[in-house]
Amino acid sequence: MNLTEKQIKAEYIYKGKIINLRRDEALLPDGNTAVREVIEHLGGVCVVALTQENEIMLVKQFRYPYSEETLEIPAGKRDRKDEDPLECGKRELREETGATAQNYTFLGTLYPSPGYCGEIIWMYCATGLDFGELCPDDDEFLLVEKRPLDEVVSMILSGEITDAKTQAAVLKVKILKDGGKL
Amino acid sequence: MNLTEKQIKAEYIYKGKIINLRRDEALLPDGNTAVREVIEHLGGVCVVALTQENEIMLVKQFRYPYSEETLEIPAGKRDRKDEDPLECGKRELREETGATAQNYTFLGTLYPSPGYCGEIIWMYCATGLDFGELCPDDDEFLLVEKRPLDEVVSMILSGEITDAKTQAAVLKVKILKDGGKL
Repeated sequence: MNLTEKQIKAEYIYKGKIINLRRDEALLPDGNTAVREVIEHLGGVCVVALTQENEIMLVKQFRYPYSEETLEIPAGKRDRKDEDPLECGKRELREETGATAQNYTFLGTLYPSPGYCGEIIWMYCATGLDFGELCPDDDEFLLVEKRPLDEVVSMILSGEITDAKTQAAVLKVKILKDGGKL
Repeated sequence: MNLTEKQIKAEYIYKGKIINLRRDEALLPDGNTAVREVIEHLGGVCVVALTQENEIMLVKQFRYPYSEETLEIPAGKRDRKDEDPLECGKRELREETGATAQNYTFLGTLYPSPGYCGEIIWMYCATGLDFGELCPDDDEFLLVEKRPLDEVVSMILSGEITDAKTQAAVLKVKILKDGGKL
Protein backbone atom coordinates (compact mmCIF):
# COMPACT_ATOMS: atom_id res chain seq x y z
CA MET A 1 0.00 0.00 0.00
CA ASN A 2 1.32 3.42 -0.98
CA LEU A 3 0.95 5.80 1.97
CA THR A 4 2.61 8.87 0.42
CA GLU A 5 0.95 12.28 0.68
CA LYS A 6 2.00 14.94 -1.81
CA GLN A 7 2.18 18.67 -1.21
CA ILE A 8 -0.23 20.48 -3.56
CA LYS A 9 -0.24 23.92 -1.99
CA ALA A 10 1.80 25.57 0.77
CA GLU A 11 0.95 28.77 2.62
CA TYR A 12 2.89 30.42 5.43
CA ILE A 13 0.56 31.58 8.20
CA TYR A 14 3.37 32.76 10.48
CA LYS A 15 7.14 33.14 10.46
CA GLY A 16 8.40 33.60 14.01
CA LYS A 17 11.29 33.46 16.41
CA ILE A 18 11.26 29.76 17.30
CA ILE A 19 8.71 28.34 14.87
CA ASN A 20 7.00 28.93 11.54
CA LEU A 21 3.50 27.70 10.78
CA ARG A 22 2.46 26.44 7.34
CA ARG A 23 -0.98 25.41 6.18
CA ASP A 24 -0.66 23.02 3.25
CA GLU A 25 -3.01 21.12 1.04
CA ALA A 26 -1.92 17.51 0.52
CA LEU A 27 -2.94 14.88 -2.03
CA LEU A 28 -3.80 11.65 -0.20
CA PRO A 29 -3.18 8.09 -1.47
CA ASP A 30 -6.86 7.73 -2.46
CA GLY A 31 -6.85 10.89 -4.61
CA ASN A 32 -8.66 13.07 -2.07
CA THR A 33 -7.05 16.12 -0.52
CA ALA A 34 -6.62 17.19 3.10
CA VAL A 35 -5.36 20.20 5.03
CA ARG A 36 -2.00 19.61 6.75
CA GLU A 37 -0.88 22.08 9.41
CA VAL A 38 2.90 22.01 9.79
CA ILE A 39 5.16 23.58 12.43
CA GLU A 40 8.65 24.28 11.08
CA HIS A 41 11.53 24.34 13.56
CA LEU A 42 15.34 24.44 13.14
CA GLY A 43 15.71 21.26 15.18
CA GLY A 44 17.40 20.80 18.50
CA VAL A 45 19.77 18.69 20.51
CA CYS A 46 19.63 17.15 23.99
CA VAL A 47 22.42 15.65 26.06
CA VAL A 48 22.46 13.02 28.82
CA ALA A 49 25.57 14.23 30.65
CA LEU A 50 26.71 11.26 32.71
CA THR A 51 29.32 11.62 35.47
CA GLN A 52 31.72 8.87 36.57
CA GLU A 53 29.47 8.39 39.63
CA ASN A 54 26.50 7.57 37.34
CA GLU A 55 24.78 10.89 37.96
CA ILE A 56 23.21 12.99 35.24
CA MET A 57 22.76 16.73 34.87
CA LEU A 58 19.22 18.08 34.97
CA VAL A 59 17.91 21.57 34.37
CA LYS A 60 14.86 22.95 36.15
CA GLN A 61 13.11 25.64 34.16
CA PHE A 62 9.73 27.25 33.73
CA ARG A 63 7.90 26.04 30.63
CA TYR A 64 5.52 28.75 29.56
CA PRO A 65 3.07 26.64 27.47
CA TYR A 66 2.27 24.55 30.59
CA SER A 67 2.83 27.27 33.23
CA GLU A 68 4.94 24.70 35.04
CA GLU A 69 8.49 24.06 36.13
CA THR A 70 9.96 20.96 34.49
CA LEU A 71 13.09 18.89 35.02
CA GLU A 72 14.84 18.18 31.73
CA ILE A 73 18.24 17.16 30.45
CA PRO A 74 20.27 20.04 28.93
CA ALA A 75 19.02 20.90 25.45
CA GLY A 76 18.54 23.68 22.98
CA LYS A 77 17.71 24.51 19.43
CA ARG A 78 20.10 24.87 16.53
CA ASP A 79 21.21 28.37 15.54
CA ARG A 80 20.72 27.66 11.85
CA LYS A 81 19.30 24.88 9.71
CA ASP A 82 22.73 23.52 8.79
CA GLU A 83 24.34 23.70 12.24
CA ASP A 84 26.02 20.43 13.12
CA PRO A 85 23.89 18.81 15.86
CA LEU A 86 26.93 17.70 17.85
CA GLU A 87 28.35 21.25 17.91
CA CYS A 88 24.94 22.50 19.05
CA GLY A 89 24.85 19.86 21.79
CA LYS A 90 28.32 20.84 23.04
CA ARG A 91 27.30 24.51 23.16
CA GLU A 92 24.02 23.87 24.98
CA LEU A 93 25.65 21.58 27.54
CA ARG A 94 28.29 24.23 28.26
CA GLU A 95 25.79 27.11 28.37
CA GLU A 96 23.28 25.37 30.61
CA THR A 97 25.52 23.37 32.96
CA GLY A 98 29.03 24.75 32.44
CA ALA A 99 30.25 21.27 31.43
CA THR A 100 32.41 20.09 28.57
CA ALA A 101 32.73 16.40 27.72
CA GLN A 102 35.44 14.17 26.28
CA ASN A 103 33.10 11.66 24.66
CA TYR A 104 29.78 11.96 22.88
CA THR A 105 27.71 8.92 21.91
CA PHE A 106 24.86 9.48 19.46
CA LEU A 107 21.56 8.04 20.73
CA GLY A 108 19.41 8.56 17.62
CA THR A 109 16.85 11.21 16.77
CA LEU A 110 13.45 12.04 18.25
CA TYR A 111 10.35 13.30 16.42
CA PRO A 112 8.40 15.11 19.18
CA SER A 113 4.95 15.19 17.60
CA PRO A 114 5.12 13.92 14.01
CA GLY A 115 1.47 14.57 13.15
CA TYR A 116 1.95 18.32 12.76
CA CYS A 117 5.53 19.20 13.73
CA GLY A 118 8.74 18.80 11.70
CA GLU A 119 11.17 19.31 14.58
CA ILE A 120 14.04 16.81 14.88
CA ILE A 121 15.88 16.39 18.20
CA TRP A 122 19.31 14.76 18.08
CA MET A 123 20.11 12.89 21.30
CA TYR A 124 23.58 12.31 22.76
CA CYS A 125 25.17 10.81 25.85
CA ALA A 126 28.19 12.80 27.06
CA THR A 127 30.85 11.32 29.34
CA GLY A 128 34.25 12.42 30.60
CA LEU A 129 32.75 15.64 32.00
CA ASP A 130 34.69 18.71 33.08
CA PHE A 131 32.82 21.53 34.81
CA GLY A 132 33.36 25.23 34.13
CA GLU A 133 31.12 28.27 34.47
CA LEU A 134 27.46 28.65 33.54
CA CYS A 135 26.43 31.03 30.78
CA PRO A 136 22.71 30.69 29.98
CA ASP A 137 20.90 32.74 27.31
CA ASP A 138 19.65 36.19 28.32
CA ASP A 139 16.00 35.21 28.55
CA GLU A 140 16.62 31.74 29.97
CA PHE A 141 16.31 31.17 33.71
CA LEU A 142 17.29 27.79 35.04
CA LEU A 143 18.58 25.78 37.97
CA VAL A 144 21.06 22.97 37.45
CA GLU A 145 20.88 19.74 39.46
CA LYS A 146 22.89 16.53 39.51
CA ARG A 147 20.95 13.34 40.28
CA PRO A 148 21.75 9.62 40.20
CA LEU A 149 20.76 8.00 36.90
CA ASP A 150 18.59 5.42 38.67
CA GLU A 151 16.72 8.15 40.56
CA VAL A 152 15.99 9.94 37.27
CA VAL A 153 14.81 6.66 35.75
CA SER A 154 12.45 6.21 38.74
CA MET A 155 11.14 9.76 38.28
CA ILE A 156 10.45 8.96 34.62
CA LEU A 157 8.69 5.68 35.43
CA SER A 158 6.56 7.36 38.11
CA GLY A 159 5.46 10.10 35.71
CA GLU A 160 7.23 12.90 37.59
CA ILE A 161 9.46 13.78 34.63
CA THR A 162 7.25 14.58 31.67
CA ASP A 163 9.59 15.99 29.01
CA ALA A 164 9.71 13.68 25.97
CA LYS A 165 13.39 13.99 25.09
CA THR A 166 14.39 13.45 28.73
CA GLN A 167 12.25 10.31 28.99
CA ALA A 168 13.51 8.82 25.73
CA ALA A 169 17.21 9.69 26.05
CA VAL A 170 17.57 8.75 29.73
CA LEU A 171 15.74 5.42 29.32
CA LYS A 172 17.96 4.63 26.31
CA VAL A 173 21.07 5.36 28.37
CA LYS A 174 19.74 3.18 31.22
CA ILE A 175 19.07 0.19 28.93
CA LEU A 176 22.34 0.60 27.01
CA LYS A 177 24.35 0.89 30.24
CA ASP A 178 22.64 -2.11 31.86
CA GLY A 179 23.38 -4.09 28.69
CA GLY A 180 27.05 -3.09 28.79
CA LYS A 181 26.71 -1.15 25.54
CA LEU A 182 27.63 2.27 26.88
CA MET B 1 15.08 31.27 42.68
CA ASN B 2 11.69 32.14 41.24
CA LEU B 3 11.47 30.92 37.65
CA THR B 4 7.85 31.89 36.95
CA GLU B 5 6.95 33.75 33.75
CA LYS B 6 3.67 35.65 33.66
CA GLN B 7 1.40 36.20 30.68
CA ILE B 8 1.12 39.92 29.90
CA LYS B 9 -0.47 39.79 26.48
CA ALA B 10 -1.95 36.99 24.36
CA GLU B 11 -2.74 37.12 20.66
CA TYR B 12 -4.12 34.35 18.48
CA ILE B 13 -2.23 34.13 15.18
CA TYR B 14 -4.14 31.07 13.96
CA LYS B 15 -7.00 28.82 15.01
CA GLY B 16 -6.90 25.59 13.02
CA LYS B 17 -7.99 21.99 12.71
CA ILE B 18 -5.33 20.30 14.87
CA ILE B 19 -3.52 23.25 16.42
CA ASN B 20 -3.88 26.91 17.38
CA LEU B 21 -0.95 29.32 17.47
CA ARG B 22 -0.66 32.07 20.07
CA ARG B 23 1.99 34.77 20.29
CA ASP B 24 2.23 36.01 23.87
CA GLU B 25 4.28 38.53 25.74
CA ALA B 26 5.61 37.19 29.03
CA LEU B 27 7.06 38.90 32.08
CA LEU B 28 10.32 37.19 33.03
CA PRO B 29 11.69 36.68 36.58
CA ASP B 30 14.11 39.60 36.12
CA GLY B 31 11.37 42.07 35.13
CA ASN B 32 12.14 42.00 31.40
CA THR B 33 9.65 40.76 28.85
CA ALA B 34 9.99 38.17 26.07
CA VAL B 35 7.89 36.86 23.20
CA ARG B 36 6.54 33.34 23.77
CA GLU B 37 5.14 31.41 20.81
CA VAL B 38 2.69 28.75 21.96
CA ILE B 39 1.06 25.88 20.08
CA GLU B 40 -2.27 24.86 21.58
CA HIS B 41 -3.44 21.27 21.09
CA LEU B 42 -6.28 19.22 22.61
CA GLY B 43 -3.84 16.59 23.82
CA GLY B 44 -3.55 12.99 22.77
CA VAL B 45 -3.17 9.42 23.93
CA CYS B 46 -0.88 6.57 22.92
CA VAL B 47 -1.15 2.88 23.76
CA VAL B 48 1.45 0.12 24.03
CA ALA B 49 -0.83 -2.81 23.16
CA LEU B 50 0.96 -5.89 24.48
CA THR B 51 -0.11 -9.42 23.50
CA GLN B 52 0.34 -12.52 25.66
CA GLU B 53 3.29 -13.44 23.42
CA ASN B 54 5.05 -10.16 24.32
CA GLU B 55 4.39 -8.58 20.95
CA ILE B 56 3.20 -5.02 20.49
CA MET B 57 1.04 -3.39 17.86
CA LEU B 58 2.69 -0.83 15.57
CA VAL B 59 1.19 1.42 12.95
CA LYS B 60 3.08 2.44 9.82
CA GLN B 61 1.92 5.76 8.45
CA PHE B 62 3.09 8.67 6.35
CA ARG B 63 4.04 11.70 8.42
CA TYR B 64 3.61 14.75 6.26
CA PRO B 65 5.91 17.18 8.18
CA TYR B 66 8.86 14.82 7.56
CA SER B 67 7.71 13.35 4.21
CA GLU B 68 8.49 9.97 5.73
CA GLU B 69 6.81 6.78 6.79
CA THR B 70 7.14 6.14 10.52
CA LEU B 71 6.45 3.20 12.80
CA GLU B 72 4.53 4.27 15.89
CA ILE B 73 2.35 2.78 18.58
CA PRO B 74 -1.39 3.44 18.13
CA ALA B 75 -2.29 6.98 19.12
CA GLY B 76 -4.59 9.87 18.42
CA LYS B 77 -5.77 13.19 19.65
CA ARG B 78 -8.67 13.90 21.95
CA ASP B 79 -11.99 14.93 20.39
CA ARG B 80 -12.50 17.70 22.94
CA LYS B 81 -10.53 19.33 25.72
CA ASP B 82 -12.39 17.45 28.45
CA GLU B 83 -12.40 14.01 26.83
CA ASP B 84 -11.21 11.37 29.26
CA PRO B 85 -7.75 10.26 28.07
CA LEU B 86 -8.46 6.58 28.75
CA GLU B 87 -11.65 6.69 26.65
CA CYS B 88 -9.66 8.36 23.87
CA GLY B 89 -6.99 5.67 24.09
CA LYS B 90 -9.56 2.88 23.88
CA ARG B 91 -11.11 4.50 20.79
CA GLU B 92 -7.79 5.05 19.01
CA LEU B 93 -6.59 1.51 19.72
CA ARG B 94 -9.83 0.11 18.32
CA GLU B 95 -9.85 2.42 15.29
CA GLU B 96 -6.23 1.87 14.32
CA THR B 97 -5.71 -1.81 15.17
CA GLY B 98 -9.18 -3.25 15.70
CA ALA B 99 -8.22 -4.28 19.25
CA THR B 100 -9.99 -3.92 22.56
CA ALA B 101 -8.20 -4.56 25.85
CA GLN B 102 -9.20 -5.89 29.28
CA ASN B 103 -6.57 -3.96 31.23
CA TYR B 104 -5.07 -0.52 30.91
CA THR B 105 -2.06 0.62 32.96
CA PHE B 106 -1.30 4.34 33.01
CA LEU B 107 2.35 5.09 32.13
CA GLY B 108 2.41 8.83 32.84
CA THR B 109 2.24 11.82 30.53
CA LEU B 110 4.59 13.12 27.86
CA TYR B 111 5.32 16.75 26.95
CA PRO B 112 6.50 16.51 23.32
CA SER B 113 8.31 19.85 22.97
CA PRO B 114 7.72 21.96 26.08
CA GLY B 115 9.54 25.07 24.85
CA TYR B 116 6.71 26.12 22.53
CA CYS B 117 4.03 23.43 22.59
CA GLY B 118 1.33 22.77 25.20
CA GLU B 119 0.33 19.30 23.99
CA ILE B 120 0.00 16.56 26.62
CA ILE B 121 0.15 12.90 25.60
CA TRP B 122 -1.25 10.36 28.06
CA MET B 123 0.50 6.98 27.78
CA TYR B 124 -1.04 3.58 28.54
CA CYS B 125 -0.11 -0.07 28.34
CA ALA B 126 -3.01 -2.28 27.26
CA THR B 127 -3.14 -6.02 27.91
CA GLY B 128 -5.74 -8.75 27.52
CA LEU B 129 -6.23 -7.89 23.85
CA ASP B 130 -9.11 -9.01 21.68
CA PHE B 131 -8.99 -8.27 17.96
CA GLY B 132 -11.92 -7.03 15.88
CA GLU B 133 -12.16 -4.97 12.72
CA LEU B 134 -10.16 -1.90 11.70
CA CYS B 135 -11.92 1.44 11.26
CA PRO B 136 -9.39 4.24 10.66
CA ASP B 137 -10.38 7.88 10.14
CA ASP B 138 -11.32 8.95 6.60
CA ASP B 139 -8.08 10.78 5.87
CA GLU B 140 -5.85 8.35 7.76
CA PHE B 141 -3.95 5.66 5.84
CA LEU B 142 -2.04 3.12 7.84
CA LEU B 143 -0.64 -0.39 7.99
CA VAL B 144 -0.79 -2.38 11.22
CA GLU B 145 2.07 -4.65 12.30
CA LYS B 146 2.70 -6.89 15.28
CA ARG B 147 6.32 -7.15 16.45
CA PRO B 148 8.09 -8.68 19.47
CA LEU B 149 8.61 -6.12 22.26
CA ASP B 150 12.37 -6.79 22.31
CA GLU B 151 12.61 -6.19 18.55
CA VAL B 152 10.86 -2.84 18.96
CA VAL B 153 13.20 -1.95 21.83
CA SER B 154 16.16 -2.75 19.53
CA MET B 155 14.67 -0.56 16.78
CA ILE B 156 14.38 2.28 19.29
CA LEU B 157 17.94 1.85 20.57
CA SER B 158 19.31 1.72 17.00
CA GLY B 159 17.51 4.95 16.07
CA GLU B 160 15.19 3.29 13.54
CA ILE B 161 12.05 4.28 15.46
CA THR B 162 12.05 8.05 15.85
CA ASP B 163 8.60 8.90 17.25
CA ALA B 164 8.90 10.37 20.76
CA LYS B 165 5.83 8.78 22.36
CA THR B 166 6.75 5.35 20.94
CA GLN B 167 10.30 5.60 22.30
CA ALA B 168 9.21 6.75 25.76
CA ALA B 169 6.22 4.45 26.24
CA VAL B 170 7.84 1.28 24.86
CA LEU B 171 11.06 1.76 26.87
CA LYS B 172 8.96 2.32 29.99
CA VAL B 173 7.06 -0.91 29.35
CA LYS B 174 10.35 -2.76 28.75
CA ILE B 175 11.89 -1.57 32.05
CA LEU B 176 8.67 -2.11 34.05
CA LYS B 177 8.23 -5.62 32.62
CA ASP B 178 11.86 -6.59 33.23
CA GLY B 179 11.49 -5.32 36.79
CA GLY B 180 8.36 -7.43 37.30
CA LYS B 181 6.22 -4.29 37.72
CA LEU B 182 3.88 -4.87 34.76
